[in-house]
Amino acid sequence: MQKEREISIKDVRVDDTFWNGPIQNAVEKVVPYQWRVLNDREPGAVPSCAVQNFKIAAGLMEGKFGGFRFQDSDLAKWIEAASYSLLYKDSEEVRGALDEIVSVIEKAQREDGYMDTYFILEKPQERWKDIAHGHELYCAGHMLEAAVACLQATGSDRLMKVMEKCVALIRKTFGEGEGQMSSYPGHEEIELALMKAYRATGREEYKDLAEYFIENRGTEPGFLREPHFKEAQKSRWFGPAYHQAHAKIRDQKTAEGHAVRAMYFFTGAADVALETGDPTLKKALEDLWDNVTQRRMYVTGGVGSQGEGECFTIDFDLPNDTCYTETCAAIGLAMWALRMLRLDPDSRYSDVMERALYNNVLSGIAQDGEHYFYVNPLQIEPDVARFRKDMESVEPNRVKWFGCACCPPNITRTLCGLGSYVYTRRGDSLYQHLYIGNKARFETEKGTAQLSCTSSMPWQGKAEITYQGPQGVQLYLRIPEYAEDFKVEKDGAPLALAPEKGYAPVTLTDGGVYTVTFAMKARYLEANPHVTEDCAKACVQRGPFIYCAEEADNGPLLAAFTADLSAPLAEEESGLFGGIVTVKATGTRPDMGPWEKALYRPAGAGRVPAELTLLPYFLWNNRGEGEMLVWMNAR
Amino acid sequence: MQKEREISIKDVRVDDTFWNGPIQNAVEKVVPYQWRVLNDREPGAVPSCAVQNFKIAAGLMEGKFGGFRFQDSDLAKWIEAASYSLLYKDSEEVRGALDEIVSVIEKAQREDGYMDTYFILEKPQERWKDIAHGHELYCAGHMLEAAVACLQATGSDRLMKVMEKCVALIRKTFGEGEGQMSSYPGHEEIELALMKAYRATGREEYKDLAEYFIENRGTEPGFLREPHFKEAQKSRWFGPAYHQAHAKIRDQKTAEGHAVRAMYFFTGAADVALETGDPTLKKALEDLWDNVTQRRMYVTGGVGSQGEGECFTIDFDLPNDTCYTETCAAIGLAMWALRMLRLDPDSRYSDVMERALYNNVLSGIAQDGEHYFYVNPLQIEPDVARFRKDMESVEPNRVKWFGCACCPPNITRTLCGLGSYVYTRRGDSLYQHLYIGNKARFETEKGTAQLSCTSSMPWQGKAEITYQGPQGVQLYLRIPEYAEDFKVEKDGAPLALAPEKGYAPVTLTDGGVYTVTFAMKARYLEANPHVTEDCAKACVQRGPFIYCAEEADNGPLLAAFTADLSAPLAEEESGLFGGIVTVKATGTRPDMGPWEKALYRPAGAGRVPAELTLLPYFLWNNRGEGEMLVWMNAR
Repeated sequence: MQKEREISIKDVRVDDTFWNGPIQNAVEKVVPYQWRVLNDREPGAVPSCAVQNFKIAAGLMEGKFGGFRFQDSDLAKWIEAASYSLLYKDSEEVRGALDEIVSVIEKAQREDGYMDTYFILEKPQERWKDIAHGHELYCAGHMLEAAVACLQATGSDRLMKVMEKCVALIRKTFGEGEGQMSSYPGHEEIELALMKAYRATGREEYKDLAEYFIENRGTEPGFLREPHFKEAQKSRWFGPAYHQAHAKIRDQKTAEGHAVRAMYFFTGAADVALETGDPTLKKALEDLWDNVTQRRMYVTGGVGSQGEGECFTIDFDLPNDTCYTETCAAIGLAMWALRMLRLDPDSRYSDVMERALYNNVLSGIAQDGEHYFYVNPLQIEPDVARFRKDMESVEPNRVKWFGCACCPPNITRTLCGLGSYVYTRRGDSLYQHLYIGNKARFETEKGTAQLSCTSSMPWQGKAEITYQGPQGVQLYLRIPEYAEDFKVEKDGAPLALAPEKGYAPVTLTDGGVYTVTFAMKARYLEANPHVTEDCAKACVQRGPFIYCAEEADNGPLLAAFTADLSAPLAEEESGLFGGIVTVKATGTRPDMGPWEKALYRPAGAGRVPAELTLLPYFLWNNRGEGEMLVWMNAR
Repeated sequence: MQKEREISIKDVRVDDTFWNGPIQNAVEKVVPYQWRVLNDREPGAVPSCAVQNFKIAAGLMEGKFGGFRFQDSDLAKWIEAASYSLLYKDSEEVRGALDEIVSVIEKAQREDGYMDTYFILEKPQERWKDIAHGHELYCAGHMLEAAVACLQATGSDRLMKVMEKCVALIRKTFGEGEGQMSSYPGHEEIELALMKAYRATGREEYKDLAEYFIENRGTEPGFLREPHFKEAQKSRWFGPAYHQAHAKIRDQKTAEGHAVRAMYFFTGAADVALETGDPTLKKALEDLWDNVTQRRMYVTGGVGSQGEGECFTIDFDLPNDTCYTETCAAIGLAMWALRMLRLDPDSRYSDVMERALYNNVLSGIAQDGEHYFYVNPLQIEPDVARFRKDMESVEPNRVKWFGCACCPPNITRTLCGLGSYVYTRRGDSLYQHLYIGNKARFETEKGTAQLSCTSSMPWQGKAEITYQGPQGVQLYLRIPEYAEDFKVEKDGAPLALAPEKGYAPVTLTDGGVYTVTFAMKARYLEANPHVTEDCAKACVQRGPFIYCAEEADNGPLLAAFTADLSAPLAEEESGLFGGIVTVKATGTRPDMGPWEKALYRPAGAGRVPAELTLLPYFLWNNRGEGEMLVWMNAR
């Protein structure tokens, strides 16, 4: 088996008619916006205190810690995003902000490498005593990802040096040796960060620590002995499974507990499996992947069916209006998918990665870049959501910021780092997972390979790839699960394809122009009949997008519409949002006449012909508050 | 307008092929069973402590108060039920138990009339200081109902004398005079009890106090000034609306807050409106009735859409699997309906009364009489209900008793007192609301009127009524909303009918035999399209019964069935439960073949013909745990 080779964030630059919008928005507007928020300079946004906490810890100002105990991680994700943004636009302002904040972090770090501002400022005697809920390792993980991003994007190793010291302290603190603590993070994250750092630096100690945390999880007592854990566990939602600590990974057959934690855990575990080549770890991850994607995932790529415990519930329990489907969890699913693709380039992973990125991830941010969803429901009636207890996490509108603001900077780093999701590489074989326009440059054993891709996706199934480089490089082109008539032409002549696991391999020749075309008509999807909430319903998919109906286009009472599955779906190029494809579903709605005063009536009240205009789910709630619906009644 | 005349519990004795079963069960088995539970002598049942609390308060034993602060009311409801039961079976054992417990209560009562054991034993300095949540007036109300039941059923006024003293204390405590407290009960109940006591004794002070409480509700500060209320109000579910204290009754246009409280409040208010004849109070109640029955009531007669706050939510929000639909709330709805029928004999009230009694009330008790539902969902998948936070009030199985055990004795008193729901009377006009076999005897101004009714309901639409008594008495026979071809024959000859508000008036002649017949075929019902949860669904009704599908008859995956509304429903006489009519719905279910590993697929996976066997909702969960479904997908 050819070994997977790391693709750096600098190898692929996205340049795409669809994604340039969100990425430029992120680079030019969101990165500066979030910097203002993190510095508490944005009116109307919940105060973050994230920068201030570091300044206080650095002795640069007086004050008390503010925000959640994991507030440091918001800043870390911003540093990661800002570093990536420089690859798109070299901004003095952003470079200055990065320099400034890294200097603050250097000063905030303690002599021994410790750097968590919550414990430094609030509970200096309580370091490493609340591993279950303290988030020290989680924050360190995000700062380590930030350090790798800084290093790769700017060449500066200042933050990496800070993190080397920090990781050294963690290595000293955790382990099976004398005086060490046998435990594992309460919120996984550092595992995948350590693997990033290992790949960026080649230093084995990062990999070893990641492997230790992955393999140790589920052993007792770990953090299960801690008073904080025992206190939290009084709620059934905060037991060992909340932290994926109910079993060792090879004994976990279902995804349990806090969905973001689970996704980050599986991502880190897949990173480790790739390096160690351990087939039992790979098999465990494949089983967990099947469980998530065949039983516990929303059609939008969302995961986490319940707000309480922000958790997975049980197989096929996928309520559309009370779900959690946190933006961060969908990002985590995309990250995990990318690692599975490195382990085994199979389109069942890339289909899900794309599903998450184009739907539940992208819905997390408004078109203005300054409003965010934490929870991404598949159905909402604003008045009901505002009233009901079981919908109290569901916001009818995106908000400017959150007290617990993990999602906004997570989206930003994902958008600015999108290039890393386009390809994976195994020896001299390249796998193109997403038809996103880009320019890529890889150093292969045979020489420098350059790819230039222009794409009509996600609106039309067409991409053109120009190659310059040595002979013998293979490009595996993903055949999306929704693609029909998938074809590849080289310089205008059709190629005979022999697909492997959903990828069509093409042997590249210098100067070759490869045109990928496929049809992707709007179509109805149905859910597995075990999904009670979606029985007798259908939703619309077109290409990577799941569609939804909004009150803005259709008026209220969306749920009363019944789609006629035998009638064709009409696609229409719309000027909305700068040009999208909308879809019209045909069916019926009730004649409301007989219902004015009746709550129940003998069946047979009339129905009248009706249609619903649908648009991609990620665009919902950009035109004011209203009902929204993904799964329509259907017959 | 002819004045409504009180019908006493002794006037009507139910003798009915359907109801004799549950009533005999209640009389012979449940009353003794619940006595054992209340005395903590029933193994496996949650300890009640209700009798023990009174014994301790009476100085007859040592110990501490046990159970909820409203534990006294469980015993009071049992006394009411036991008193009624003596009308069916004069049991030495029950008489003895009643004598014994009344003696204990006499001793437990304080010199000044105070008698709430929670405050006597636990918080003697806190009397009348937590009107919002203390339940002193609620418990007194139930004991007053018990006293009226004792008086009417046994002729003993011992408990009534106790309650006279207690009410005198309450009258001294509450009011607008100097040194009095301007307030109203935190949990309504005493209002309707006072009105019962007024009718039973003719003592105006009962009516006056009831009217004061009804009219004062919603004024500030009332109990809103109390620290306990302010503390509870920190949760948005426990504000003024929880207690229907958000507005005065004439300004309440929607039913809000705790559903049982609301039902008891409206019941008491209707009692007051009948006595005072105030048209504005009647109008307020009609508006509230419309709101509840046209927008906030389940098809089973359940009310209360949410467990948190046990409350009404908003119009048309009627989730089937996370609902509360407490047995007590449906009993309250039936009680309110009965009062509305006294105010205005219109079948829109009796249709709802019957719906509640035959469905959500009767489902509260198992066929064995010893297991109870508190929450009566319309859809359940046991594994999901056990897991999900928002279903934590929903039990997949009836239980032997509850820590908070308001429902079980409430059902028992309703079954043993069912006779009071059959008729109302206005001058010399009788209104028969329910076709339940019975023997009735009323003293009218013209002389003694005796009715004897035999009925084939609820399985067939036929009842025969024999009349003996003076000429000129009118019998108004209800035309149920589901009845077709409603006919009345006198001595075999058809009568010409001139229905008024859903009732067919017949002038009775001595010795006349009146035969009521109507068809009531199984039929599909649909819900108002504003009810999102029921869109594109249908349920089956046959006569008074709403039907459901159970896993016991149909296997799992009930929600995947789609009923074909154009196919006839097949009725079948079944030997189940001693003889019932089951209904078969015809439709389709998914071919599960394509779904083994797929969560989402393009629409068009095959469906195969299928049918569901349905039985009356009230019988669900009498054959073990399993899925249950009322609203089926339909096309």
